[in-house]
Amino acid sequence: MRDLITSTANGHVKRIRSLVRSRKERHHERMFVVEGIRLVEEALSHSELASALYLPEHLGATARGRALLDRLERLPGAAPTTAAILAQLTDVETPQGVIAAVSQPALAPAVLSLALVLDGVQDPGNVGTLLRSAEAAGADLVICLRGTADVWSPKVVRSGMGAHFRLPLMVDVDWADVRPQFPADIRLYAATQDASLAYDQADWRQPAALVVGNEGNGVSAQTLELAEPITIPMLGAVESLNAAIAGSVLLFEAARQRRSA
Amino acid sequence: MRDLITSTANGHVKRIRSLVRSRKERHHERMFVVEGIRLVEEALSHSELASALYLPEHLGATARGRALLDRLERLPGAAPTTAAILAQLTDVETPQGVIAAVSQPALAPAVLSLALVLDGVQDPGNVGTLLRSAEAAGADLVICLRGTADVWSPKVVRSGMGAHFRLPLMVDVDWADVRPQFPADIRLYAATQDASLAYDQADWRQPAALVVGNEGNGVSAQTLELAEPITIPMLGAVESLNAAIAGSVLLFEAARQRRSA
Repeated sequence: MRDLITSTANGHVKRIRSLVRSRKERHHERMFVVEGIRLVEEALSHSELASALYLPEHLGATARGRALLDRLERLPGAAPTTAAILAQLTDVETPQGVIAAVSQPALAPAVLSLALVLDGVQDPGNVGTLLRSAEAAGADLVICLRGTADVWSPKVVRSGMGAHFRLPLMVDVDWADVRPQFPADIRLYAATQDASLAYDQADWRQPAALVVGNEGNGVSAQTLELAEPITIPMLGAVESLNAAIAGSVLLFEAARQRRSA
Repeated sequence: MRDLITSTANGHVKRIRSLVRSRKERHHERMFVVEGIRLVEEALSHSELASALYLPEHLGATARGRALLDRLERLPGAAPTTAAILAQLTDVETPQGVIAAVSQPALAPAVLSLALVLDGVQDPGNVGTLLRSAEAAGADLVICLRGTADVWSPKVVRSGMGAHFRLPLMVDVDWADVRPQFPADIRLYAATQDASLAYDQADWRQPAALVVGNEGNGVSAQTLELAEPITIPMLGAVESLNAAIAGSVLLFEAARQRRSA
């Protein structure tokens, strides 16, 4: 059995901590941090693992955990640690006993038929939830325009539940970078609150990109110059829907139209 | 100006605190607690206010806050307090400077055309979000079966964003209580992960009730005896959608079909 890591000065601890805390570090190293049995399993099948820390007794408590423990014990870069060290690396209340620094998958879409564009979405839970909905609705690409929460942050990764490993992502880009990547005939739709075009009247069977904006301010002025505004008609006195809810309703309308096309 | 309340033994403080903490107390008193300028404004137009505590300097900082402050200063039961007292009554990180205990609105649906049934949904954020989506999609009633998170808890109220004042609610009931209230021809659909009926193939133009189940375990066995299972077809490797996302996608499909009927 390997030596138990008990010092915050250990290289693995320092590496994971800096990737947890610093967007710049994640960007520079092209790495990110995943926590929990499921996500670390996914990471081992999709990414290169640089560092992993785990609590042997914690993983040993379930069959699935033991299987992961077996794999980790044979990997260079993986080491057992203490609950106190692990608690310093996570803001999860009940950590699952394993955390790892892994390379950011670099996936490219095979076709571009449905893209989700995040234009200043700020809440990490919303970004992660939108990734998950985008994958489930069949999007081939998610684009995070500058000003969007970092898609590789621990909170986004947690709520994305593995979508990061399967969905091509373009991050920290402007419309000027994005437009040349799009086919000429793509339809750009921007989720807004007061457009005259209802979202289900838009034609989602053609190549399309859906733009979801900031929680408070909606999509940017530049997006409004490029994209056709659409809206989800609402009854009652509700002023707006949560960005993840609205984006998901729109993505699944696209999927619905494509299924029935 | 009224005396500043600085003691946790004050009657208003005790009343609000017990309503924040205790589901039994909320149920017994038929009251609940709202926080923030918007929700307290709504409470004043819809409910009977029993107790309110506010930070005058905090509300005084915006025009909307000042207007509310003017109203509160003329209301019996409303009193200024300190930030320290207010902080003890809320788990919001940056309290908005006003909290109130108000009566639970007792609304009844005029017709029963679309109902949302929560069957063990546990996360308060999901329950609140589903109320908001239900109102926006035109539901006339939300039913919380026993085992669902308390719809009157502060977290649910916060994420409901005012839906509690506008949407008829039936809480703490069983199917035996609910069925006699439903028209005979109502269609019951249960959101599940592996039904053969896709949600958009269900007919939502008839009177319908949608059942959304527990985050981990789905709908109850009793629900499955009564309701037709439907599913949201998913692509990619996503195992499931968040309960609030799935429920909202289903509710807005009902609204969509009703608009185009």
